[in-house]
Amino acid sequence: EFEAILEELQPYDVAKIYEDLPEKHKGRFLLFLKTDVLADLMEELDKEEQLELLNILGIEKTSKVLDLMDNDDLALLLNELSPEKKDSLLSGMKKEESSAVQGIMNYPPETAGRIMTNRFVWIRDYFTVREAVDKFKIFAEFAESINYLYVIDEARKLVGVVSYRDLLLAEPEEKIREIMYERVISVSAATDQEVVAQTAERYDFLAIPVVDENNVLVGIVTVDDIIDIFIQEANEDIEKLSASGKSIDFETKTLVAAARRLPWLILLLFIGVISGRIISSFEETLQRVVALAFFMPMIAGMTGNTGTQSLAVVVRGLITQDIDRRVITRLIARELGVGITIGVTCAIIIAIIAYIWQGNLILGAVVGSSLFFTLIIGTLAGTIIPLILYRLKIDPAVASGPLITTLNDIFSLLTYFGIATMFLKHLM
Amino acid sequence: EFEAILEELQPYDVAKIYEDLPEKHKGRFLLFLKTDVLADLMEELDKEEQLELLNILGIEKTSKVLDLMDNDDLALLLNELSPEKKDSLLSGMKKEESSAVQGIMNYPPETAGRIMTNRFVWIRDYFTVREAVDKFKIFAEFAESINYLYVIDEARKLVGVVSYRDLLLAEPEEKIREIMYERVISVSAATDQEVVAQTAERYDFLAIPVVDENNVLVGIVTVDDIIDIFIQEANEDIEKLSASGKSIDFETKTLVAAARRLPWLILLLFIGVISGRIISSFEETLQRVVALAFFMPMIAGMTGNTGTQSLAVVVRGLITQDIDRRVITRLIARELGVGITIGVTCAIIIAIIAYIWQGNLILGAVVGSSLFFTLIIGTLAGTIIPLILYRLKIDPAVASGPLITTLNDIFSLLTYFGIATMFLKHLM
Ligand SMILES: [Mg+2]
Ligand SMILES: [Mg+2]
Ligand SMILES: [Mg+2]
Ligand SMILES: [Mg+2]
Ligand SMILES: [Mg+2]
Ligand SMILES: [Mg+2]
Ligand SMILES: [Mg+2]
Ligand SMILES: [Mg+2]
Ligand SMILES: [Mg+2]
Ligand SMILES: [Mg+2]
Ligand SMILES: [Mg+2]
Ligand SMILES: [Mg+2]
Ligand SMILES: [Mg+2]
Repeated sequence: EFEAILEELQPYDVAKIYEDLPEKHKGRFLLFLKTDVLADLMEELDKEEQLELLNILGIEKTSKVLDLMDNDDLALLLNELSPEKKDSLLSGMKKEESSAVQGIMNYPPETAGRIMTNRFVWIRDYFTVREAVDKFKIFAEFAESINYLYVIDEARKLVGVVSYRDLLLAEPEEKIREIMYERVISVSAATDQEVVAQTAERYDFLAIPVVDENNVLVGIVTVDDIIDIFIQEANEDIEKLSASGKSIDFETKTLVAAARRLPWLILLLFIGVISGRIISSFEETLQRVVALAFFMPMIAGMTGNTGTQSLAVVVRGLITQDIDRRVITRLIARELGVGITIGVTCAIIIAIIAYIWQGNLILGAVVGSSLFFTLIIGTLAGTIIPLILYRLKIDPAVASGPLITTLNDIFSLLTYFGIATMFLKHLM
Repeated sequence: EFEAILEELQPYDVAKIYEDLPEKHKGRFLLFLKTDVLADLMEELDKEEQLELLNILGIEKTSKVLDLMDNDDLALLLNELSPEKKDSLLSGMKKEESSAVQGIMNYPPETAGRIMTNRFVWIRDYFTVREAVDKFKIFAEFAESINYLYVIDEARKLVGVVSYRDLLLAEPEEKIREIMYERVISVSAATDQEVVAQTAERYDFLAIPVVDENNVLVGIVTVDDIIDIFIQEANEDIEKLSASGKSIDFETKTLVAAARRLPWLILLLFIGVISGRIISSFEETLQRVVALAFFMPMIAGMTGNTGTQSLAVVVRGLITQDIDRRVITRLIARELGVGITIGVTCAIIIAIIAYIWQGNLILGAVVGSSLFFTLIIGTLAGTIIPLILYRLKIDPAVASGPLITTLNDIFSLLTYFGIATMFLKHLM
């Protein structure tokens, strides 16, 4: 009865139950699970839990479970192991399965080749619809996606695709070549996973075929992995924008989390020292008009904020939109306009506040005009820096929020004290 | 021949061609397209382009196109129109289609009800597999997802689900009730879209059924829309973390983009003025030791950065992980540990730099110990504020990066000048 319930559970639920079990009961629980459920469970666990589970299972059962796991998940696991451990696991597997997963591991990380599966159904263009449906039935359990049948020629080149929906709507005796789509949209195995995800999203595909440099069909990427890519890439962008360090989640250990954030912070600490040197070079100005110090954090902070705002717009825009020279020119012009609009508005407000507070009209003018210029600089820096990085094929998000913020600190201090020093006579 | 090519193109490609056509040729291009292709094209366009297209088509053809559009996309369009325009479009549509889309529009924005479609296939549990397959074939063209058949009882309550894969593997004379899964995972129509997307991702579903308060099946949400939700929610988080304003993309007009960012900036401007007042209240200290000003932006900036780092980790973690009291306690303890580690490291570095630069041991100690305390405060603020907001069911990302940064400015200035004033005698 317990087994019957387990049978009805989704892998995610089985994993939740397993994770919440006390250590000593995990072994007994696993005894209840069939090999295919164990493979599904493995796919849901993180690396440490996977290794623990394999230890509990023992060598013989492990091989059977690995044979049934999705190639991409298995490749991820194997990739983290020592060469010896990896080879010993691979040697226990079926020849066919181990060579498939080794094929995947040969592609660079974050490419289509790494996340594809070889569990797809292919047919030939001379098949009839009936023959295709029959082949499909045979492979239905094995296939990772039942939505498309890919048509290949004798050299295994991808020449067409038929959706299962089309098969249902066609006559049994029709030939595949008569109903297939020949303009197949595919990605190459070396394509960056983010581009794969964008392509699948644009076309609302449930799977996308992957070909090698000779257009030979080597695998498919399924939509569940596309979703994982979107989540992973969004997390990456947020991590980089906030310089919060790679892959820190609620489970990350204290020292690991600290070590991942520290490099950024130390870099920013040194940039902060540079700000300090700039201020110290205006020591005389500051000594004479201490009130200048009151507006310093506000100006630096506001400039940083506008930079971050522009940066966020550009980084996300680059993911979802098509970019050409015209778009970029228009974007920079737009952000310049935004900078001017924001600059004028905030400058007027702060000039009035500064004048009322300090009773010094010149001080108001100095603070206001500085803010005007620094907001424009901030906006443009937040726009142009990521675009340049994008052009250089560097991930634009590495121009992280705090980094732009801190660079903008430096720009804004130079502008502020520069203007103040020019008007020093009138300020005192 | 041109038509034959169009026939083979995906909606996204048709939309790209249409968007790039000169205005005067758009009308002629549309004449080549069949009604169903027009409906697909509509789904790809943004609101302005949709309205322009409908204008070109004329009233009669418009109704036919709207009948064929996905309900969720149509609801989005109608929702942006004036009541008169909306009613006139609805009145031209088939009764059945217009009432379906009106049903969807009754649900609050960003809920499952708003993004579901009623184009799913349902069966009864006394059907045989053969009958189910036959019904499926009839509705294959109409259905938005061909992966699942939902089993309902006489009151239209959802009682089971059969995947098409299961149908392929079953015997034709088996009853649906024998092969269906009864533990159907569904969402309620009022469920937030983000929860819907999370659920679909966890279970790797290609569609998820939506039920009303009586467990009556009212629609399904398909995986293409799940992907769009993940993209939209990630953009939202980034917009909020960077306070960059809602939905600004490369096409947004200058004044609109400026207007969306300004409210945040003005708020932050006033908070910046508060920082200024704090500094001014320590005017005397600053007057005596101007060197204190050199380290001011660095301390404020670093505190802001650690806050943003913690914030990013928490905001993204809340999306993908399960939260309970134990997790929260552990997270806060971890971040406290991170704050201390980061604090000690950076404090030692800056104390040494300050001592070497200014030749003042006490200044080094003041700057170092201030940074130590403010980094801990920054880390905790970035962790605890979003958790409180989450508890209050406010989107934690509204504790946006710049807001936390600016609040941390204030904390850090108070700490820095407080400590400096205590040791003032020794500093001079
Ligand atoms: Mg699996
Ligand atoms: Mg899409
Ligand atoms: Mg996979
Ligand atoms: Mg996967
Ligand atoms: Mg990316
Ligand atoms: Mg990437
Ligand atoms: Mg459609
Ligand atoms: Mg779409
Ligand atoms: Mg998933
Ligand atoms: Mg839809
Ligand atoms: Mg949609
Ligand atoms: Mg959200
Ligand atoms: Mg939301």
